[in-house]
Amino acid sequence: MNDRIREILSWYNSENPGIRTNLARMLNHGRLASTGKMVILPVDQGFEHGPARSFAPNPAGYDPRYHFQLAIEAGCNAYAAPLGSLQAGAADFAGDIPLILKCNNHDVLNDEKDPISALTAGVEDALRLGCVAVGFTIYPGSAERTEMYEQLRELTLEAKSVGLATVVWSYPRGSSLSKEGETAIDVVAYAAQIAAQLGADIIKVKLPASKVELPEAQKVYQKYEIPISTLTERVRHVVQSTFNGRRIVIFSGGATAADEQVFNEARAIRDGGGFGSIIGRNSFQRSQEDALKFLGTIMGIYEGSTK
Amino acid sequence: MNDRIREILSWYNSENPGIRTNLARMLNHGRLASTGKMVILPVDQGFEHGPARSFAPNPAGYDPRYHFQLAIEAGCNAYAAPLGSLQAGAADFAGDIPLILKCNNHDVLNDEKDPISALTAGVEDALRLGCVAVGFTIYPGSAERTEMYEQLRELTLEAKSVGLATVVWSYPRGSSLSKEGETAIDVVAYAAQIAAQLGADIIKVKLPASKVELPEAQKVYQKYEIPISTLTERVRHVVQSTFNGRRIVIFSGGATAADEQVFNEARAIRDGGGFGSIIGRNSFQRSQEDALKFLGTIMGIYEGSTK
Amino acid sequence: MNDRIREILSWYNSENPGIRTNLARMLNHGRLASTGKMVILPVDQGFEHGPARSFAPNPAGYDPRYHFQLAIEAGCNAYAAPLGSLQAGAADFAGDIPLILKCNNHDVLNDEKDPISALTAGVEDALRLGCVAVGFTIYPGSAERTEMYEQLRELTLEAKSVGLATVVWSYPRGSSLSKEGETAIDVVAYAAQIAAQLGADIIKVKLPASKVELPEAQKVYQKYEIPISTLTERVRHVVQSTFNGRRIVIFSGGATAADEQVFNEARAIRDGGGFGSIIGRNSFQRSQEDALKFLGTIMGIYEGSTK
Amino acid sequence: MNDRIREILSWYNSENPGIRTNLARMLNHGRLASTGKMVILPVDQGFEHGPARSFAPNPAGYDPRYHFQLAIEAGCNAYAAPLGSLQAGAADFAGDIPLILKCNNHDVLNDEKDPISALTAGVEDALRLGCVAVGFTIYPGSAERTEMYEQLRELTLEAKSVGLATVVWSYPRGSSLSKEGETAIDVVAYAAQIAAQLGADIIKVKLPASKVELPEAQKVYQKYEIPISTLTERVRHVVQSTFNGRRIVIFSGGATAADEQVFNEARAIRDGGGFGSIIGRNSFQRSQEDALKFLGTIMGIYEGSTK
Amino acid sequence: MNDRIREILSWYNSENPGIRTNLARMLNHGRLASTGKMVILPVDQGFEHGPARSFAPNPAGYDPRYHFQLAIEAGCNAYAAPLGSLQAGAADFAGDIPLILKCNNHDVLNDEKDPISALTAGVEDALRLGCVAVGFTIYPGSAERTEMYEQLRELTLEAKSVGLATVVWSYPRGSSLSKEGETAIDVVAYAAQIAAQLGADIIKVKLPASKVELPEAQKVYQKYEIPISTLTERVRHVVQSTFNGRRIVIFSGGATAADEQVFNEARAIRDGGGFGSIIGRNSFQRSQEDALKFLGTIMGIYEGSTK
Repeated sequence: MNDRIREILSWYNSENPGIRTNLARMLNHGRLASTGKMVILPVDQGFEHGPARSFAPNPAGYDPRYHFQLAIEAGCNAYAAPLGSLQAGAADFAGDIPLILKCNNHDVLNDEKDPISALTAGVEDALRLGCVAVGFTIYPGSAERTEMYEQLRELTLEAKSVGLATVVWSYPRGSSLSKEGETAIDVVAYAAQIAAQLGADIIKVKLPASKVELPEAQKVYQKYEIPISTLTERVRHVVQSTFNGRRIVIFSGGATAADEQVFNEARAIRDGGGFGSIIGRNSFQRSQEDALKFLGTIMGIYEGSTK
Repeated sequence: MNDRIREILSWYNSENPGIRTNLARMLNHGRLASTGKMVILPVDQGFEHGPARSFAPNPAGYDPRYHFQLAIEAGCNAYAAPLGSLQAGAADFAGDIPLILKCNNHDVLNDEKDPISALTAGVEDALRLGCVAVGFTIYPGSAERTEMYEQLRELTLEAKSVGLATVVWSYPRGSSLSKEGETAIDVVAYAAQIAAQLGADIIKVKLPASKVELPEAQKVYQKYEIPISTLTERVRHVVQSTFNGRRIVIFSGGATAADEQVFNEARAIRDGGGFGSIIGRNSFQRSQEDALKFLGTIMGIYEGSTK
Repeated sequence: MNDRIREILSWYNSENPGIRTNLARMLNHGRLASTGKMVILPVDQGFEHGPARSFAPNPAGYDPRYHFQLAIEAGCNAYAAPLGSLQAGAADFAGDIPLILKCNNHDVLNDEKDPISALTAGVEDALRLGCVAVGFTIYPGSAERTEMYEQLRELTLEAKSVGLATVVWSYPRGSSLSKEGETAIDVVAYAAQIAAQLGADIIKVKLPASKVELPEAQKVYQKYEIPISTLTERVRHVVQSTFNGRRIVIFSGGATAADEQVFNEARAIRDGGGFGSIIGRNSFQRSQEDALKFLGTIMGIYEGSTK
Repeated sequence: MNDRIREILSWYNSENPGIRTNLARMLNHGRLASTGKMVILPVDQGFEHGPARSFAPNPAGYDPRYHFQLAIEAGCNAYAAPLGSLQAGAADFAGDIPLILKCNNHDVLNDEKDPISALTAGVEDALRLGCVAVGFTIYPGSAERTEMYEQLRELTLEAKSVGLATVVWSYPRGSSLSKEGETAIDVVAYAAQIAAQLGADIIKVKLPASKVELPEAQKVYQKYEIPISTLTERVRHVVQSTFNGRRIVIFSGGATAADEQVFNEARAIRDGGGFGSIIGRNSFQRSQEDALKFLGTIMGIYEGSTK
Repeated sequence: MNDRIREILSWYNSENPGIRTNLARMLNHGRLASTGKMVILPVDQGFEHGPARSFAPNPAGYDPRYHFQLAIEAGCNAYAAPLGSLQAGAADFAGDIPLILKCNNHDVLNDEKDPISALTAGVEDALRLGCVAVGFTIYPGSAERTEMYEQLRELTLEAKSVGLATVVWSYPRGSSLSKEGETAIDVVAYAAQIAAQLGADIIKVKLPASKVELPEAQKVYQKYEIPISTLTERVRHVVQSTFNGRRIVIFSGGATAADEQVFNEARAIRDGGGFGSIIGRNSFQRSQEDALKFLGTIMGIYEGSTK
């Protein structure tokens, strides 16, 4: 194991060797192995948005095994999915790629203003399926956030005790936030901090926009002239807000975007000190051939990282 | 151990030796060791107010280890923080300073009128991390207070059984209180009493103002001419309201204030028989050099205490 | 043990010997030992009304140990208080007086129309502190009463299994009752019946007024000419309503009143077949010397009881 | 409570107030209340030796209630018996005398060389029956002692958690000890020490003889000229061996003996600083009238104690 | 905390911060604080050998509090004792010295050839009493060793989960070993290795003699010319056998010996890289004045350590 991976693992030295082992399994897997960067394939859109919205663009994706194969062939560090999807491939692909079991999920059949995801899996499932981590989504800003934080606290406590890593999707949403506020730089940085405080080992947030949502925060960003005008600067601020870079924080681009935009975002993540990308729809909603090329380009960007 | 510390511990003689040992560990640590006074560094603002509002004034504070170092070098009696922050330093600083695990936390991304904090950690975490105490915030005055008191009761019962001390932040808030009412002398004294009745070993309240909020209380303060015109008198009344001084009650100043004001407040706490200060933003939001000097001055004020 | 105490205990012969032992401990303690009458000192006003309203009239009461001493020196049958107060004296006064742990409490910092008290202690605490009973307040008439009855049912079930007696404060309150209705004779009698039905061993109600609150009840009181014009008659009716006198029911006078009025009330309780008084504010809000004389007079009234 | 009882309770200040309360209940009950001395009536011979050997001398003793009455009328500090006997009277005599539930028992239908008693009751029974303590017999010297010590450790842990005191009968027996060795002074002192180390609150041993059993011990008794020639000296040595007098240790005389001998033994226990007697067969195997006179004489001897 | 202590703690970096905190509490306490050396006072002889053999030479030791005071005044790193002894002083000395609860014990009233100690306390007790570690004795060589190893494994698992350190007394005994074999260098080194393999944090063995007990071992010691002729060499070999010095291993001298011999042994322990001494009888079986001087000399030897 090289020094960079050892350095990253040293940030987790209050955790047991099991957690560090599982973090190492992800960091040392795939094309980006030992770079300290990660590209993770997540596929929970079937649950979150419905099957046709998710898989009609590339019907191969209706088969859960497709996504295992895609992640493996692309050389992703890990593959993340809900219980059903993982169960549909865990046996066939046992040992081929680190798995993250997404333990809560939300559908849009009743899209409330203050959402909360349902607990759909847990630590026993993750162990049974050979996963390296559990995943969990929180919606800071939702009136239901207290319930979610407490569910995450229970999940994390149990996961830590059996040496599983915890990956938290921290997505601000809820009646008290404007739509733009969900990706405002202050809100995204806050969401990353909350996930870190709740004990997350790996944190996933959306790429932040330059807007500042909260008036009290705005005063501070202005007074201290925190640089947030470029995406690279904003990534750097989020990394700083995540224990000054001592927790792995990765970024998602959200909905489908033009390839070049995604590549530029990856460059900004890389240059801002981010640890990588979690890319779902942009990769599995195109043909496998295109997806492999697309993901390859992104990984190439991260390989060029000086750190 | 000197007589003053033995006297303080004697107030807790219904508790097991484990709790008394952990109280002694705090009382006998740092520059104020064996004086019976305490200065505690709490850093939960990253969760409570967001990272930029908390750490932009002194960006070294984005790194959780900075606060361990600050508390250690300043000679604080203890350092208090949420799960994530403690986990980020507990291994590196094992044995260097008594730790208090803040077990519930609240963010301002959805700032409700009747707040309740989320349970974010517990007794297992505190033991695993080598803490001397668990910390918990209640908001007397909130419509959710019953839930909070019951959560605290569960936490305290479990903590007591394993010999951990309990530190309660008792901060009146909620729809039934005016903004000024939150620091009204009658309300603060009431909040301290409630925490003591709930079994807290150490109680933290805000410094009270001379306002009396509740009409029924106002009659009593006037009839019995309870002296509350000076801060020293108000501290004395809060100490009296906390089992006549037989529970450790410490005070926070709240938001950033001029140094001389904080020093005068410390003098009032000392002269009123308070047990010390819990100082967060005023210390970690300045450079380490300034912070050490600032905390040193405050500790010097408490050292000058005749009792 | 004399015949009267044996007779009282015989009413509880479906309960285990532990409960009867703890009832006997109260009935055989203090100046009224073996008379079948009880005077209990309760001090939960610090939590219920705040410290200054409770203790400013006699500042010695800020110290929880004062009330232990008062109850012991006055020769009360038992002392009742919340967790914090009991913990502050249980070790120093171990074995000196039967203790009742008040397991739920309510503050007035957010005084809702339909109150519910918070669970603040439980059976483990009561055993650890050497108590003879747990105490619990219900507010019949509150929209939250179902929750309270169910909490009481859980508490009682657990207490009975370990031989602790259960003392229920049954105080009608809530949005459906008028202020006068809270002490209306039909409502008080009803509240006593509910407590008895919930399995209470000792029931505490307020002294009833002659008003009848509920229209349906009013018809019956008139039709059967139930005598409720004097306090003695109303006490007798409450005693009758509490399993025809086969449960111990004691009365509180509420807020401070003229001494002679309290003495007359005690005479009415005695003459109506009540089992005694629970007297808080009227005793601890005066000097200890006065309180001892005052409680002595009340006990003298009960000693004069022919039964 | 007088100073001597407070002094005794202070030795137990690592225990919770519940245990101290139950110790106080015994120390403050009966004719020897508040002297710091105890006379306890134990009746487990029905189980240990069979009914006829136990009760034929005074057939009234076949009725378990007889022994409650005897202990109550004689003014004993407590009555100790197995589950069946206590259940047969606990309801009738609830609150009349502190009860000790003997939680293990041994019969002589198969009298092995290395005996172990059977667990016949536990903490739930003790609470249900209103007991102040659990009792347990260990046989140091038995090859089965490890099992017994571990059973006692479990019982003690549970008893302590609910505030019950623990009374240990420490009776050396087993294949490695000569018959005389069972009451040898070194062996009895050792047995008392073992019980104290196992966490016993009250320890019962047999009156020691002047014989020294163990060769290694003999060297020490001779070298340091430990005075053991008189019974008073031997009692003093046992008291010293029980945490230098900081645990209550009481003595049994064993089989029926001439009255004057028993009285002289009581004088020796008193003069040697012992805390009292536990007297079974010598009291219940004679008529009640004689027994009351006999126990009265013994209590008179202890009342004459200067300490 | 200095570099040497940090280095020692780094060997335990698979353990949680709680264990490291408790190790640091011992390493940083008393006169040898921060030297990386330890002198521990253990007093379990009252249980292991009986009271007179243990305390007659210095009768002050009959009082358990004497040993707390001795350990505190001498500046020991920790005090180790069985449940009863610790309970007799834990409240009075709360916070004064790190405590190790000896969780199993053995008496000599039935001295079997293949001994096993009884479980006499556990993790709940250790937490309740404020201890930093649990202690446990194994007898490698006993036919009962498997049972002991499994009991230790259970204890260690539970202790680790709550952050308590584990101290193992590894004393070869049993029917398969000659008396001299119990301290043979190969056997002692083997016993230290077994304790380390069972997860012990601190290991206590007897000082080894130059004899090699096991024929298969003898071949190896000769073939590789392992230097074991001097005590320093043998200590070095034991340290090597305990994970090459990466576990704290301390030594006991056993029965009373001439002072100069003990001092020479301490020098050999120091020079061989041992971590210190655990000295019971040689310290508490002389007057306190002598004991303080004696322990002071030993600590002085360790202070002179270059490492």
